[in-house]
Amino acid sequence: MSQTETPAARREPIPLNGVDTPTLFATINAVKGTPSLANFQFRAQNTWVRGTNSRSRIESFSGAGGEHQHARVFEYDADHPAVLVGGDAGPTPIEFLLIGLSSCLTAGLANIAAARGVTLNRVESKVEGDIDLRGILGLAKDVRNGYKGIRVSFTIDGDAPPETLKALVDQSRARSAVFDVLTNGVPVDISVATV
Amino acid sequence: MSQTETPAARREPIPLNGVDTPTLFATINAVKGTPSLANFQFRAQNTWVRGTNSRSRIESFSGAGGEHQHARVFEYDADHPAVLVGGDAGPTPIEFLLIGLSSCLTAGLANIAAARGVTLNRVESKVEGDIDLRGILGLAKDVRNGYKGIRVSFTIDGDAPPETLKALVDQSRARSAVFDVLTNGVPVDISVATV
Repeated sequence: MSQTETPAARREPIPLNGVDTPTLFATINAVKGTPSLANFQFRAQNTWVRGTNSRSRIESFSGAGGEHQHARVFEYDADHPAVLVGGDAGPTPIEFLLIGLSSCLTAGLANIAAARGVTLNRVESKVEGDIDLRGILGLAKDVRNGYKGIRVSFTIDGDAPPETLKALVDQSRARSAVFDVLTNGVPVDISVATV
Repeated sequence: MSQTETPAARREPIPLNGVDTPTLFATINAVKGTPSLANFQFRAQNTWVRGTNSRSRIESFSGAGGEHQHARVFEYDADHPAVLVGGDAGPTPIEFLLIGLSSCLTAGLANIAAARGVTLNRVESKVEGDIDLRGILGLAKDVRNGYKGIRVSFTIDGDAPPETLKALVDQSRARSAVFDVLTNGVPVDISVATV
């Protein structure tokens, strides 16, 4: 997954950090041989509950040449908090982006650490997103609707020098799907059917 | 919240769709008078569990001039599915973006419908994101890490003509924090401390 693995790690990957490194490398090699296996589609279904409360359901996805069901159905309420005239039945929608970002960087970090033979003891991160709600409230045309900026602060305890641990985060960022979407944006198409 | 409310709706907002419309308008007016109330900070804390599994915690935020606790602590596991060499203890990180998008558009839609005097009976949406994993697997330099594109399909049953219901979605998109971040991107700063 990078140019900096040791030759030994390339030859004999061993499971580490809870990562099944041999299977991970075998998967990468399988995709290398059959690139169409890399085409995935992820999905969510959302049902409005009341007010600003809705419920999202994550159940199936396609990829690796087939359809897949998650181990179980994952359901999540989103809502606005009381101070934003909601019922606080779940996080605000914009908070789910922070979950996606921190968990993506952390998953990549664990995979990359395993590939590089680095044992991790503890990885924690704090994510903060600043937003001026005059945008979504329609009170200021020059204020954007979304976050002005996001900060991620990692604390890592691992069996390697600080520069090696920091390089894991650099590589994770360089290969993060969520970091890419959040920093570079993605086309979103919206359609509506009425009944 | 838009140019198309009727004068009657502007003068006498009434609760609708589970939206406390009078309080919503009062909140907007309060922010209009004191713009600094609009500065919010949302936060997540993430702890690595093992492999690609991590747990995010949503607990507090600041805004409207103070610190706030959510009604309860919200915790979410993220993981990779088995086909991507994970334990499937939660959705993949990139799926959390789909939750954020659909729930943001839906919350806005409910607020805007209430402001415009439109009763909603049912709102459902399906979100699909296409991704070529050769990007994150480091197998193709010309393939991005994140989604190539996202599609949102709404089905709306409400007490208004189709064009009125579709206009609710247009206005929600125009005021959506998550739609803005996902389509336009946001600066993300990452720092690392080692222990």
